[in-house]
Parts: sequence; structure tokens; C-alpha cells
Amino acid sequence: MAFSMRQKVLFKHCDPAGIVFYPRYFEMMNDCVEAFFDHIGHPFEELHTKAAVPTAQIETTFTAPSHHGDMLDIRLGCTRIGTSSLGIAWHGSADGETRFTASATLVHVGQNGRPLPWPAPLRNTLELHLEGAD
Amino acid sequence: MAFSMRQKVLFKHCDPAGIVFYPRYFEMMNDCVEAFFDHIGHPFEELHTKAAVPTAQIETTFTAPSHHGDMLDIRLGCTRIGTSSLGIAWHGSADGETRFTASATLVHVGQNGRPLPWPAPLRNTLELHLEGAD
Amino acid sequence: MAFSMRQKVLFKHCDPAGIVFYPRYFEMMNDCVEAFFDHIGHPFEELHTKAAVPTAQIETTFTAPSHHGDMLDIRLGCTRIGTSSLGIAWHGSADGETRFTASATLVHVGQNGRPLPWPAPLRNTLELHLEGAD
Amino acid sequence: MAFSMRQKVLFKHCDPAGIVFYPRYFEMMNDCVEAFFDHIGHPFEELHTKAAVPTAQIETTFTAPSHHGDMLDIRLGCTRIGTSSLGIAWHGSADGETRFTASATLVHVGQNGRPLPWPAPLRNTLELHLEGAD
Repeated sequence: MAFSMRQKVLFKHCDPAGIVFYPRYFEMMNDCVEAFFDHIGHPFEELHTKAAVPTAQIETTFTAPSHHGDMLDIRLGCTRIGTSSLGIAWHGSADGETRFTASATLVHVGQNGRPLPWPAPLRNTLELHLEGAD
Repeated sequence: MAFSMRQKVLFKHCDPAGIVFYPRYFEMMNDCVEAFFDHIGHPFEELHTKAAVPTAQIETTFTAPSHHGDMLDIRLGCTRIGTSSLGIAWHGSADGETRFTASATLVHVGQNGRPLPWPAPLRNTLELHLEGAD
Repeated sequence: MAFSMRQKVLFKHCDPAGIVFYPRYFEMMNDCVEAFFDHIGHPFEELHTKAAVPTAQIETTFTAPSHHGDMLDIRLGCTRIGTSSLGIAWHGSADGETRFTASATLVHVGQNGRPLPWPAPLRNTLELHLEGAD
Repeated sequence: MAFSMRQKVLFKHCDPAGIVFYPRYFEMMNDCVEAFFDHIGHPFEELHTKAAVPTAQIETTFTAPSHHGDMLDIRLGCTRIGTSSLGIAWHGSADGETRFTASATLVHVGQNGRPLPWPAPLRNTLELHLEGAD
């Protein structure tokens, strides 16, 4: 996975057990997708003026807990590109220990909520970042 | 799935596309687990004085978007009970349309973060609520 | 304050210190405003099809911490109505102890973000619920 | 205000009106406090092993809305230091336009929730960062 984002585990992410409350991980994964689209020159704020990219399916394994202050390295790879879909995989770690792995399918939809083919320039760019699932 | 919780889709749940931002669904699912443990007489606030119930794995399919004002019916069932684990399934719908399905494995852990067998009274109660996965 | 909403302090609301993380209180206050508008027959999901009600100013005092499992009673009153503004006050308590007090000014705005006079039917209803600040 | 943090307005921050949902601003302000304590060498994750820093009072004015993609510059200053309290002010802007101003009182408390004097090394450091309110 070629793209990565660092995210310190902040106070707001943690629950009474002192570890990341798992819905917060999904916010981080979403932030990571947004940072990736920034990185490839198609920022979410532009994409979302005429379309949206909801998540159709996601599966996650939380391998080890993360504590307040841990520095997470969240890696992201594109695993497949369909007409209007995109497969994403994430790998989150800290201090060399895997904390979570996840994979999802995003769908590019129009303002009516129906699938909409990726615009050609975006699709071409995404294809450059396609990696095998790992 | 015998237990259910109603949750109106509120302003705070929705994103710029006007639909539920998916990390918010995970908060709802977590709230539903908490309401279920309340319902069976083992409230989370008591359980969490000496232990925790982190989510080890979760997979979710978002079938159709939910909009601000929709009344969600979130059903929950226990699909399997291990020594210190619990399988949970959810089914979310509104107006008779499925919005999401999910399944997860929770793990009962002690304050050191290691798996801890379910206390017998809680285990016995959970077994009464065991259903086949559906 | 004539309107009230009960809100149990849930796991998701609490921080590593085991008490409500204060941004979560603002979500609760927002939920309370939304429940109030439901109650008076002008639900947010209808209001927000053509307008919005952003918060222009808010001040809050957190008097005592709230813990996981506490049952909060959140009271809300309308303290003043302007052409396109609304003064709101909240009082949050549990077990008879004040946990927070807050007051805010909301503004009714059009899709261009500019202040928009309250529609007459909504304004008339709000006036019925006007109370002195307390 | 000498300390500043940049925060892009992300998808997760925005509501159906396409602007920052105000409870999300409080998360940003909290993140900014946490980044400030990091910066001065007293990270929150160390401070919170034996104590906590809840917010006792906060007041905020939202001057102009922030949209998805805006780059916020959030400035923070310490306005006063008491035995166990700390006055904080924030100023948030984007493109040279003020978006919000806020001020708060934080309190250093022990594990019993009672005010606890700032440890001398932290207090000395905070005093170096004291500014007049502005």
C-alpha cells in the first residue's frame, strides 16, 4: 500500500477503557480516503459538489488495541476499480504492530444516489494507483 | 432477531450528501448493543467497572442510504457465544427497506486487555438470547 | 423550561477519564433542539429542505461531571425570538444535580446562508413556547 | 496567540447544509489544546495517566460558516493561570476571515475529580506562554 497517513491517537478517540472507540477508526479510515483523493489531485470537496462516494460494504479486523498517544500509520491501497466502484484496503499499525486491517467498496454516485461512472480523468488516475489486495 | 431499538436519523448523523455518514451507523450499532445489555439486566456501565467488551471484527453492508428524519428499526441478535466472545448480528431498516446488515465478534476482556471468560450469570443470560445467524 | 429530553450517558459519550467528553454534550443539546422542533410540529428534516438553523453563539458551564450510566434530564426553553433568530437555554441534570447550563442563539438561514425570517406558522408556534430566561 | 494548528475542513465535519456541524468545532478546539500541550512538552497522554483536564466553562461565537475543503487556521493562547485552572482563548479563521472565537476555563483535576494544583514544571511552562486575552 503506497499511500499512508499518520494519525496520533487523540483524547477524543478514546473510550473509558482508554483505547480507541472503534467507530473513531472508521472516521480515521474515511479521513485517509479523503487524504488519498487530495494526494491524487481529486479532492473530496470538488468531487462532492456534483457527486458522492458512499461506502457500500466494509469489513474490519481489530487486531490489537490502540492507546491515547500512539502514533498510527494508516496505509491505503486501491485493490480494484469498477465502472463506478472502488475497492480500498487499509492497514493500521503503531510501533510496528498491526492494529487493524480493513477493506471496503466505495461507490461513486450522482446527486440522485444512483451509481455514476467515474469521470475519465479520475478513473485514469485511480488506475495508476491500483495495487493487488494484500 | 428478537431485540430491537428505534433510532430516528438525526441532523448530527448526516453528511453533506444528506445521508447517514457511515461511522455514525457504528455508533448506532454500539448503542444497540448497550441497549441490549441493559435489557438483559447487565448494563454496560456495571460491566465496564472491571472489564470491557471491545469489538474484534465487524463487517457491514450498507444496502440503501438513510436520510434525515428516517425512523430506523435496528434489530440485534446473538449468533454465538464463546468462552469470552460473543457473535452479534444487526439488521437496520426503515419503512420496510433494509438499510444495512452487519455482524461482529465482541470479546470480553479484563482490565489488562486479555480475554476474560464471561461471568456465569451473564453467560447464562446471553445463552437464553442465542439465535441462529440470519 | 417546559420541554425536556432524557438521555442516558452511553459508552460512546465518555472519555478515558470515564466522564462525558464535552463535545458530546453539544451533540446532546443539538438533539434536544431537534426533539423540541419535532414536538412543536416543525421537524428539522422538513425545515432543512429549504433552510438551516446554524448556531451563532453558545455558552456553557459544566457544573459537575456526568458518568457512564447516568440518566440526564435535559430541559430546554426558548428565551427570545427575533426576526430570524431564536434564543435557547438548556439545563442538564442527573439525580437532581445540575450537570450543565447553556444558552445559545440560533439563526434561521436560507440556502444562501443569509438570515431568513422565520416562516409565520413556525414563528407563531415558537412564541407559544417563549419563556423568560432562567 | 502564538500557537496555531491547521485543520482542513473534512467531509466528517460537515452537516447536510454543507458546513461544519458546530460540535465538531469543539473537537477541533480540544485537538488544538492537545497539540499545544504536546508542543510545550507535556503531552495529554502523560498528563492523563494520573489526572484530567476537563472544561469547566466555554463560550463560542461562530462568525461565519466553514465549508468542506476550507483550511482553518486555529490559534490558541493562554489567558490566565490559576492554582488548578487555565484560561484558553481560540481564534479560528480561513482565508483571512474569522470563523469563530472562543474562550474557556480548563481545570486540572485528580483521579477523584477534585481540583489539583498544576504540577510545578507544567505551571512554569504554561506561564511562559501566558498572553493577554485578545
